[in-house]
Amino acid sequence: MRAFQITGTEGFPSLQLTTLPDPQPGPSEVLVRIRSVSLNYRDCMNVLGIRGVTGPVPRIPCSDAAGEIAALGPEVTDWQVGDRVVLPFMPSWLSGPFTQDHAAAALGGAIDGVLRDLIALPAASLVAVPEGVTLDQAATLPCAAVTAWNALITRGGLQPGQTVLILGSGGVSVFALSIARLAGARVLAITSSDEKAHRLRQLGAAEVLNYRDTPDWHLWARQQTGGEGVDHVVEIGGPETLNRSIQAVRHGGHIALIGVLTGTVGQIETVHLLRKGLRLNGIYVGSRDLLAQVTQCVAQGGLLPVIDRVFPFEASAEALRHLESGAHFGKIVIQL
Amino acid sequence: MRAFQITGTEGFPSLQLTTLPDPQPGPSEVLVRIRSVSLNYRDCMNVLGIRGVTGPVPRIPCSDAAGEIAALGPEVTDWQVGDRVVLPFMPSWLSGPFTQDHAAAALGGAIDGVLRDLIALPAASLVAVPEGVTLDQAATLPCAAVTAWNALITRGGLQPGQTVLILGSGGVSVFALSIARLAGARVLAITSSDEKAHRLRQLGAAEVLNYRDTPDWHLWARQQTGGEGVDHVVEIGGPETLNRSIQAVRHGGHIALIGVLTGTVGQIETVHLLRKGLRLNGIYVGSRDLLAQVTQCVAQGGLLPVIDRVFPFEASAEALRHLESGAHFGKIVIQL
Amino acid sequence: MRAFQITGTEGFPSLQLTTLPDPQPGPSEVLVRIRSVSLNYRDCMNVLGIRGVTGPVPRIPCSDAAGEIAALGPEVTDWQVGDRVVLPFMPSWLSGPFTQDHAAAALGGAIDGVLRDLIALPAASLVAVPEGVTLDQAATLPCAAVTAWNALITRGGLQPGQTVLILGSGGVSVFALSIARLAGARVLAITSSDEKAHRLRQLGAAEVLNYRDTPDWHLWARQQTGGEGVDHVVEIGGPETLNRSIQAVRHGGHIALIGVLTGTVGQIETVHLLRKGLRLNGIYVGSRDLLAQVTQCVAQGGLLPVIDRVFPFEASAEALRHLESGAHFGKIVIQL
Amino acid sequence: MRAFQITGTEGFPSLQLTTLPDPQPGPSEVLVRIRSVSLNYRDCMNVLGIRGVTGPVPRIPCSDAAGEIAALGPEVTDWQVGDRVVLPFMPSWLSGPFTQDHAAAALGGAIDGVLRDLIALPAASLVAVPEGVTLDQAATLPCAAVTAWNALITRGGLQPGQTVLILGSGGVSVFALSIARLAGARVLAITSSDEKAHRLRQLGAAEVLNYRDTPDWHLWARQQTGGEGVDHVVEIGGPETLNRSIQAVRHGGHIALIGVLTGTVGQIETVHLLRKGLRLNGIYVGSRDLLAQVTQCVAQGGLLPVIDRVFPFEASAEALRHLESGAHFGKIVIQL
Repeated sequence: MRAFQITGTEGFPSLQLTTLPDPQPGPSEVLVRIRSVSLNYRDCMNVLGIRGVTGPVPRIPCSDAAGEIAALGPEVTDWQVGDRVVLPFMPSWLSGPFTQDHAAAALGGAIDGVLRDLIALPAASLVAVPEGVTLDQAATLPCAAVTAWNALITRGGLQPGQTVLILGSGGVSVFALSIARLAGARVLAITSSDEKAHRLRQLGAAEVLNYRDTPDWHLWARQQTGGEGVDHVVEIGGPETLNRSIQAVRHGGHIALIGVLTGTVGQIETVHLLRKGLRLNGIYVGSRDLLAQVTQCVAQGGLLPVIDRVFPFEASAEALRHLESGAHFGKIVIQL
Repeated sequence: MRAFQITGTEGFPSLQLTTLPDPQPGPSEVLVRIRSVSLNYRDCMNVLGIRGVTGPVPRIPCSDAAGEIAALGPEVTDWQVGDRVVLPFMPSWLSGPFTQDHAAAALGGAIDGVLRDLIALPAASLVAVPEGVTLDQAATLPCAAVTAWNALITRGGLQPGQTVLILGSGGVSVFALSIARLAGARVLAITSSDEKAHRLRQLGAAEVLNYRDTPDWHLWARQQTGGEGVDHVVEIGGPETLNRSIQAVRHGGHIALIGVLTGTVGQIETVHLLRKGLRLNGIYVGSRDLLAQVTQCVAQGGLLPVIDRVFPFEASAEALRHLESGAHFGKIVIQL
Repeated sequence: MRAFQITGTEGFPSLQLTTLPDPQPGPSEVLVRIRSVSLNYRDCMNVLGIRGVTGPVPRIPCSDAAGEIAALGPEVTDWQVGDRVVLPFMPSWLSGPFTQDHAAAALGGAIDGVLRDLIALPAASLVAVPEGVTLDQAATLPCAAVTAWNALITRGGLQPGQTVLILGSGGVSVFALSIARLAGARVLAITSSDEKAHRLRQLGAAEVLNYRDTPDWHLWARQQTGGEGVDHVVEIGGPETLNRSIQAVRHGGHIALIGVLTGTVGQIETVHLLRKGLRLNGIYVGSRDLLAQVTQCVAQGGLLPVIDRVFPFEASAEALRHLESGAHFGKIVIQL
Repeated sequence: MRAFQITGTEGFPSLQLTTLPDPQPGPSEVLVRIRSVSLNYRDCMNVLGIRGVTGPVPRIPCSDAAGEIAALGPEVTDWQVGDRVVLPFMPSWLSGPFTQDHAAAALGGAIDGVLRDLIALPAASLVAVPEGVTLDQAATLPCAAVTAWNALITRGGLQPGQTVLILGSGGVSVFALSIARLAGARVLAITSSDEKAHRLRQLGAAEVLNYRDTPDWHLWARQQTGGEGVDHVVEIGGPETLNRSIQAVRHGGHIALIGVLTGTVGQIETVHLLRKGLRLNGIYVGSRDLLAQVTQCVAQGGLLPVIDRVFPFEASAEALRHLESGAHFGKIVIQL
């Protein structure tokens, strides 16, 4: 089979197309022929060496994929060859609490990922792609949509009528916008261009701020809520934006901490976390159960993945560069 | 009535004994004759000017008190003169969610506190002190015990068999130890002296570390849990200890962020909050409902407040100095 | 002021128009001039003597109302004369847990209700009616909408993509439909006529069954969910429908038990509640906090109360008869 | 291997000792040599034909067992031969939500159970028995202790200081008593003899009633809580006791519905469920995660299983008769 591999940790970029033996499914595994892969900023960090992220090499990058079942292990009874499936971000995390073992098994992290033709995975880890949902759409869900769902629905307990603040227009933020709207919430968004602001409004954002014009976006967010502060922030920036997010949220409010865009460590005003009685949830994607829930919402028509652009497999490096440029809006897909 | 007042924001200490007119209860208020006051580190910060904490002056400090009802407003029907009561930290926060208005009404913060003979408060805000509970004991509960309860029970959702890490032996930590034990949890503690370690063990701590001998207490905490990490940390230190607490807790675990002992802002490794899928709750005391729950546990005999030392009213400044010295173990009480 | 009173418990109907002295607000109360009242089936039971419901007589019936503030008690500072407000079902239940005392204070139950010109209530119990929401709309919310919200959002924890089954097209059911749709859920409905089925579909029900044609609606509901069963049932029938609801819901699913339409006691197959691991929540309206949340959703445009018909004050008896007939769809309003 | 089988559905009792071929572990299974089995009332119903419970025959009864790993499937890496393990009630329910598939896989229900020498089960379903816990003790946990834990801790959200009412002194009730005490709750118990009352008090029940003297135990329970009602009822009776339990619980309180001792269907006063805003949870044992939590509490010394009597394997029928007699207190164990 064809696969892209990260071949070195120095001298990035180092993505190389290679040919590997076809994987064989174990007794309770299935073999999936991958048709669509979607990219996350984590893939940029891995492949392009951003923030010094490393891992074993050579290694196949990327975590998000959908495809068709190509073969079944001898003990598998609940799937058939040809079934359309979407892969989970962490194949061992089916349900229940998060553990270190689940984290270690994330595709494309410490182990090989999905930027290849074929992969063998436990049958129990896959989620069926329902009729009416394309494989490109399904491939956008495992990391970004599940992360946004976990942040707002599972951990956040979002209720209709609450106000959600999203930062930017990357994959997680755009899914957070769509999920918040689906759940009856009001969405405030900040972005870096008027064109992106326009698209965020089209997707249902009630108010959008171009933060290049108004850097004090936390004050703006408070104004949009009568001075009280928002109920939830989907914090994808990290340490550089977190202090503003803490200012933007109401007493007793919720911050879902997701991103490392601005770094992994920073000066944080912890005193306000306690004085305001805030709830801060670190979100690292989510279980297969959440992927099934998100997929169900797409099938019901309540959630429409926003696909920025589709690249052919051969142009995978270009797709990563496009993601790194920040020019995208929503998800970038690679078709095999 | 007699009252101590903070009389200036420069030149701390500035605690002055004075005489003020007796307060009068409003229609739905009661007048409480204060018999016992307990101290919190917040009072040190206010009175001794630690961390540059300021507020209006002159102002009566302290938040935690118990006493007897001395008079009733004309609309009050559910209390009688002579009833023993304990005061809530924030008289307007009876139940339900935390708001900025509740925070602004905290006793001894932006408004006058309880280091005085008499106070008028809304009748609905008080909690009856049951038979068998002394007023000294009751006075220890409003801030420290409610904070520990909110941290572990209300927000933490502590379950029997889980492991809780506490830092030090101040008021909140010792209550957290007792509450965790009452709730069937296993407690790890770190402290600064062997004598305190001995007392923590007597109160039910399973393992205690003297961190002066072993500064890497986060590694020790992981070892005590088979390498996995603890379920909950009662983080009373603040920015300087938070990174170690993040290391000490398991994937998916919980940190209750309470303290500002080491500062209000600091360098935090936010990346681990998300990678480990942590839950971080900022805790700022709690509602009157929680005070009633804690008081109930004391009355049932499940929770015994640890009183370090009792000072007479006149020695209030000395009591604060004793708290500031860090030599105490549990709560310091002032009797009127 | 004008008021209708229930004047006897025998020989219903007994609704009589009378003139009573204007109430005076206490120190922390406001006087509200009632402009709109909405009806609930509970009012029929009270006024028309259905199910032998009794209470003190003479007594003013009805619980749901909105109006304008006509006067302020001397201690009230956060309202102004002329402010538009909606009344809570239980004026003492502001937030937090439900208690017997809250239940005893329900308007129009053991105490006088709102079918009158003026009422004095605690200032803290009222909810402001935002711009863009009419008083007729606001008056529909205190009982039916809050009940549906409590059932699905607060206690039910409804998530987007889940399936909700509603029974009939009375006030609670139609609000439950709208709230479920707002929250991103799929709704199944059963009703007694094709015309009502048409209107339920217009409001967003995915599938509607006329149960006169297909009495085994629990089997139908299972079929609509691939045989698995629905996630939530809004059970407004009571004992006669509960066994079917238990059949209709999935393992681990949720039944919100609300209604007494079919009686107060009945033969229940309790074994299935445990075998299926069901969650059953008895719902008795909800706190002022929930009324504020529902009102917010109406103001944001996410929730549009369905008003069946508006009657003048003089025709209150006729309005009740219309409700009792079951011919209505949504809420019946009386204007003063 | 030796095994007992239920050999017919008519003419109970029909328990027959037989010899069956040794089971072989699949690729990801382990073979467990069973050393201890504990009995539940469900086993009486199955073997003795109580309430007409049926199932496929011949079939091996019983669900609760502990033993040692005797062999490993080729893909199993995390267990070793000789490891001591306890079996889960439903081997497919590892974590997360309850489903119909999990229920169908309950041991000793529709499929063969554990009253035999050897069983092959998925490696991931087993829980290690820690040092200091005997296999007899471990064998008491899978059904009764997990049920009580699920009822009070997982679903009930029991908090320290709350009051729990338990009915009788069977396996679930005695575990509920111990778990409630471990979690800092106050326990009220009703029982049928003074001797059992004495033992319940020894285990920590605050107050015990002999209901043969005082049939109106719901009134007694209310009196013990100042008239307010208990926070939780562990309802193991079923329809005949449920109405009293509904009376015994406070407004907003919780009933864990577990038992079918008095039948599977009955006349229930549903109106009080809603008027009191009750929470009723049907409890059908629980996941492997809960078994791990309970086992952990036994290992920590916080929970001591109460073993009524130990029978040898050959006397299995006698052990079942002893359980059926109601003379037991706590769990009955069969040793192999």
